Amino acid sequence: MKKVGFIGAGIMGRPMAANLLKGGLELYVWNRTRDKCNDLIAAGAKWGESPAFLARECDVTFSMLADPAASVDVCFGLDGVVTGIGEGRGYIEMSTIDPGTARRIADAVTKAGGRFLEAPVSGSKKPAEEGTLIIMAAGDRSLYDEVEKAFGMMGKMSLYLGEVGRGAQMKLCVNLVMGGMMAAFCEGLALASRIGLDLRDMLNILDAGAMSNPMFRMKGGLVLSNDFPVAFPLKHMQKDLRLALLLADEAGQSLPATAVVNELFKKARGQNLGDLDFAALWRVTKESGH
Amino acid sequence: MKKVGFIGAGIMGRPMAANLLKGGLELYVWNRTRDKCNDLIAAGAKWGESPAFLARECDVTFSMLADPAASVDVCFGLDGVVTGIGEGRGYIEMSTIDPGTARRIADAVTKAGGRFLEAPVSGSKKPAEEGTLIIMAAGDRSLYDEVEKAFGMMGKMSLYLGEVGRGAQMKLCVNLVMGGMMAAFCEGLALASRIGLDLRDMLNILDAGAMSNPMFRMKGGLVLSNDFPVAFPLKHMQKDLRLALLLADEAGQSLPATAVVNELFKKARGQNLGDLDFAALWRVTKESGH
Amino acid sequence: MKKVGFIGAGIMGRPMAANLLKGGLELYVWNRTRDKCNDLIAAGAKWGESPAFLARECDVTFSMLADPAASVDVCFGLDGVVTGIGEGRGYIEMSTIDPGTARRIADAVTKAGGRFLEAPVSGSKKPAEEGTLIIMAAGDRSLYDEVEKAFGMMGKMSLYLGEVGRGAQMKLCVNLVMGGMMAAFCEGLALASRIGLDLRDMLNILDAGAMSNPMFRMKGGLVLSNDFPVAFPLKHMQKDLRLALLLADEAGQSLPATAVVNELFKKARGQNLGDLDFAALWRVTKESGH
Amino acid sequence: MKKVGFIGAGIMGRPMAANLLKGGLELYVWNRTRDKCNDLIAAGAKWGESPAFLARECDVTFSMLADPAASVDVCFGLDGVVTGIGEGRGYIEMSTIDPGTARRIADAVTKAGGRFLEAPVSGSKKPAEEGTLIIMAAGDRSLYDEVEKAFGMMGKMSLYLGEVGRGAQMKLCVNLVMGGMMAAFCEGLALASRIGLDLRDMLNILDAGAMSNPMFRMKGGLVLSNDFPVAFPLKHMQKDLRLALLLADEAGQSLPATAVVNELFKKARGQNLGDLDFAALWRVTKESGH
Repeated sequence: MKKVGFIGAGIMGRPMAANLLKGGLELYVWNRTRDKCNDLIAAGAKWGESPAFLARECDVTFSMLADPAASVDVCFGLDGVVTGIGEGRGYIEMSTIDPGTARRIADAVTKAGGRFLEAPVSGSKKPAEEGTLIIMAAGDRSLYDEVEKAFGMMGKMSLYLGEVGRGAQMKLCVNLVMGGMMAAFCEGLALASRIGLDLRDMLNILDAGAMSNPMFRMKGGLVLSNDFPVAFPLKHMQKDLRLALLLADEAGQSLPATAVVNELFKKARGQNLGDLDFAALWRVTKESGH
Repeated sequence: MKKVGFIGAGIMGRPMAANLLKGGLELYVWNRTRDKCNDLIAAGAKWGESPAFLARECDVTFSMLADPAASVDVCFGLDGVVTGIGEGRGYIEMSTIDPGTARRIADAVTKAGGRFLEAPVSGSKKPAEEGTLIIMAAGDRSLYDEVEKAFGMMGKMSLYLGEVGRGAQMKLCVNLVMGGMMAAFCEGLALASRIGLDLRDMLNILDAGAMSNPMFRMKGGLVLSNDFPVAFPLKHMQKDLRLALLLADEAGQSLPATAVVNELFKKARGQNLGDLDFAALWRVTKESGH
Repeated sequence: MKKVGFIGAGIMGRPMAANLLKGGLELYVWNRTRDKCNDLIAAGAKWGESPAFLARECDVTFSMLADPAASVDVCFGLDGVVTGIGEGRGYIEMSTIDPGTARRIADAVTKAGGRFLEAPVSGSKKPAEEGTLIIMAAGDRSLYDEVEKAFGMMGKMSLYLGEVGRGAQMKLCVNLVMGGMMAAFCEGLALASRIGLDLRDMLNILDAGAMSNPMFRMKGGLVLSNDFPVAFPLKHMQKDLRLALLLADEAGQSLPATAVVNELFKKARGQNLGDLDFAALWRVTKESGH
Repeated sequence: MKKVGFIGAGIMGRPMAANLLKGGLELYVWNRTRDKCNDLIAAGAKWGESPAFLARECDVTFSMLADPAASVDVCFGLDGVVTGIGEGRGYIEMSTIDPGTARRIADAVTKAGGRFLEAPVSGSKKPAEEGTLIIMAAGDRSLYDEVEKAFGMMGKMSLYLGEVGRGAQMKLCVNLVMGGMMAAFCEGLALASRIGLDLRDMLNILDAGAMSNPMFRMKGGLVLSNDFPVAFPLKHMQKDLRLALLLADEAGQSLPATAVVNELFKKARGQNLGDLDFAALWRVTKESGH
């Protein structure tokens, strides 16, 4: 693997691409708005004229985009990845997309002779910058083996999970746990607050024991300030909970606690908190009871 | 503070007393069954003939017992703490007891001229041995200041939370979060298991990200082996959730997610899993859906 | 049974006593405020000077009071039922009281040689006036047999349910269903309202099918007008749900749906809707999501 | 309206068509398996050779089929309704179908010059026979006015709810209430059963008061016998709850109680109770806690 392409220079994509560059790879970049690639180009990356160009010229092309619609465009649109990719080339979709879209892209890439991996990540802006993402890859095994080293530049852990779809499924299971943890965190703090305990004491206690985790530390600060600048938008968390519940419905798995957690996030979304960080669930939990 | 008493030499009490001894304090011990104190005595502790004797002879007496009934007995029974304690002596109840019992003991000790602290702990056998408990103290402030150093021998953190009752309340809030985390953990793993993902992969992913915490690490191993040797009994967790919900009821705080989590633990208790570790919730979560 | 006593002339008690009078019984009445008995006395009832007087002079004395505290007072207070009741006399507590209080009263009455029934009712003001209450009796069987005819004057159905405590338990089970039905009703209407369906249409459809019931008819009108004059106070419904959940906890019965319904009523109570009719749950259901 | 067509002669369709015949209409029938129409033909109906034939020859054609797939086939398949229908003819889909399918059929029928109504019903086998269905119609208003009399032969109530989609939405809202009522019913009975109350007593009490409704009467008998011959399959109830929750999700309406009820039905479905009557939820409720 000599030449590598990267599509998408947003909050996540730019630092990820930068880490590939730091790792010593020859990097071609493309973004709808070229300006966003200036820093990368200044640091040694080359501009590729289109997704098709990257897919054709590079051994492997990664993409990290804002939403499934952008993924579809970049892949199937004019001068899209599908029109460029050929025998043996690899395409790796790191955006979070639904299983149906993932399969359509996989089919198109494979038909054109290419190889495909979905590789959604866990972790947001900061881990992307620090190269400590967790990468849940699924699809072509040979391609996974070839890019494992590149994954290592962007993340602290990558896993190969099987056929296309497994990556997205794993991410839903993980985010289900995250949503439930947040609800437990908010309800415990809300009770403490209601009966007049000091939330700082409670956060310190939580952080000293077996439940201690970085998320409680980070989000505890947001709760104390009742200010929720977005790292992972609440509306995305609620969407993931809905998708996890639908997956469970198909599979016949009853998830009573998660179902209620989803309704709480849904209520928060309905109160226009959807674009804040998902820790803004606090506002709904705290107010309920007034 | 020169002489210190310790009542209770069970799984928790023995290592806690041993840590006070290691800390250089002059220690008197008492336990219903004297045999259990043999190791402590061999290590330098002195046998006290009754709770009353300890309360009278020592500057401060700690107790750590199995249940509220034992606490009541040790305090109000024949040759109990209340009959021995006098002007300026301190009594510190570290067992988890209900607020009503705590207040009764506090009143009796205070009336007799003594000072009282409730000081329930977070952490089980291992942190007791390693001196890394978290101590949530409430009651007499001057007594707290005097024993803070002794608390430091048994725990890695102690907090003074205010009037008697605050310690138990804080513990309920913290355990509410713990119960909710466990439910989220089990439901996420159950969905993963149901759709055929590898639980080891999921545990690794959880452990690599912002949710990473010692509890998931420890309990994840139990889930994989489906074997749940008790550290914190499931029935105690359910009792704490029930008490937390009653506290919230009085305070007018709605806790929908916790209410469902409590019903899940209740179901587990009803399936004779109450004496296993609270991670045995897994069995209920996993089976629901078959 | 010739002479009958009736203690309590409130919203429920007055029409119930009136129905006993219409049924042709010789009736003695007592109420803390004598004025409230004026209508009954004008209609032929005699004034009894105290609860003790009634208990002594009458073959059977019924009571219907506002809360457990009033029941305790009337029974154990100065010139209370216990000081008057003697061999063979009957005392029937129709107020809703907790099992502990019921047992204390039963013990005292029995010790004094009397016989006791608890007999909580289902139905509020209107059924009390129309003599269509449902009476859930428990305690002394021979007393039940003697007063069955009197129950028939106050209610359209009476059942003997066994030992003291069974009446209150049955009432909790019945009210649990009522709370759950109300939650389902409100959530269904809230969804319909949110998506722009006409609530009158939906109420008509519900009333035409297998779910058709008087409660939905009555409460549907309240929902349409968003006005909730109290028939059964929301705070009492929430109290009954809490007690039902505690009963289930002791018995090891998991009730996930009821647990969430209780939290919804708790939220409504916390929003100062406790003194409105329990159909005011609508306001909480409707707003959630804004 | 002189000639009327009826497609589908299953458990629901046959008695519905029979009621149109009894109402004095000239009836043409079609069913995939002609044998099922024998009784109708013996009673005076005429055989129509295909859906297209009915749509062409009759002023209005009704259909009542087992599932959306059958509806699509009958409409778009070889000799389907769409190929026959023309200027001014009416087509009325009374099967329960999803909004997407309803709109596709509506579009095709309208394009061909016909008029369309979706008209899902509430009520199962018995109301179909007795002509006491509830009909939730939506679509072409002029067609509704013309067939209102025919609806009156099949149902005791019909409502015009607006544009295509409103009928299906209303049915989901109504079934949401039905699912919640069943969960409340089962949990109340489960608690009663667990603490040793007589379920017959409780059913009698429920039937005597404000909650009294035909559904509790019918399903109470099933619960007592623990035998659940299907009237409305549990899996269909769970599907409707899932669809109602998705509708609420889109609309931003939080439904915590319904979310848990859905999980309970899902659990029942997962325990192979999906083909029994939806009252088989009892088995899941009763067992939880063992």
